[in-house]
Amino acid sequence: MNTFDLPSAYRNYIQCLNEQKWSGLHLFVHEDVDYNDQRVGLSGYRNMLENDFLQIPDLHFNIQLLVADTNHVAARLSFDCTPKGIFLGLPVNGKKVRFSENVFYQFHEGKVHKVWSVIDKAAIEAQL
Amino acid sequence: MNTFDLPSAYRNYIQCLNEQKWSGLHLFVHEDVDYNDQRVGLSGYRNMLENDFLQIPDLHFNIQLLVADTNHVAARLSFDCTPKGIFLGLPVNGKKVRFSENVFYQFHEGKVHKVWSVIDKAAIEAQL
Repeated sequence: MNTFDLPSAYRNYIQCLNEQKWSGLHLFVHEDVDYNDQRVGLSGYRNMLENDFLQIPDLHFNIQLLVADTNHVAARLSFDCTPKGIFLGLPVNGKKVRFSENVFYQFHEGKVHKVWSVIDKAAIEAQL
Repeated sequence: MNTFDLPSAYRNYIQCLNEQKWSGLHLFVHEDVDYNDQRVGLSGYRNMLENDFLQIPDLHFNIQLLVADTNHVAARLSFDCTPKGIFLGLPVNGKKVRFSENVFYQFHEGKVHKVWSVIDKAAIEAQL
């Protein structure tokens, strides 16, 4: 596994999300995945992502910056999309908003095992 | 500069902040530093940090996770502190809060040159 190319694996994971190929999510995400220190598991993680696309039909993950070491990826993701209704507790209601997410991933057995994400809610508030 | 140890430089930078040794900040931060895509410069960056400590007298930067490549550091920082008054637009008013910051640094000439930070405002809101 020393030659495992984490940035490539991560880019394939993001492609999987953007294509909403949920049947392939297990290739990238560990069965026992944690999200922000909560065990959600692969099925919970998939539900979370599916809900994101329900709430934001034009959701697209754009990798703006990617930093990797042997078993971590850190990514700054950018979004330019129109969430429906209340998003992150904010009345976005279909307005076009731009925001970033700074997120860390710890890999285990070649798959995303722990995720620590912060979404720039303040940036969205400033656009409403 | 190929042997420049970015994680060590970053830990020294964080120590400089925690000790509020502002006279030494130029050793770690570039004169032309940008913060979230805005040119603030070294003096603006120092003002920002000094204001942070005025607003949060018990501010302390804790490195929870650090990922580095040849010219970037990504860090998840954790805070356990008591901001005075309004903090990030929220009425914290001296309540003890815990939150994280996920932040990327691009280095140039051995110093922090571009910073992209997201603070977990939603986590603070949930504690009020």
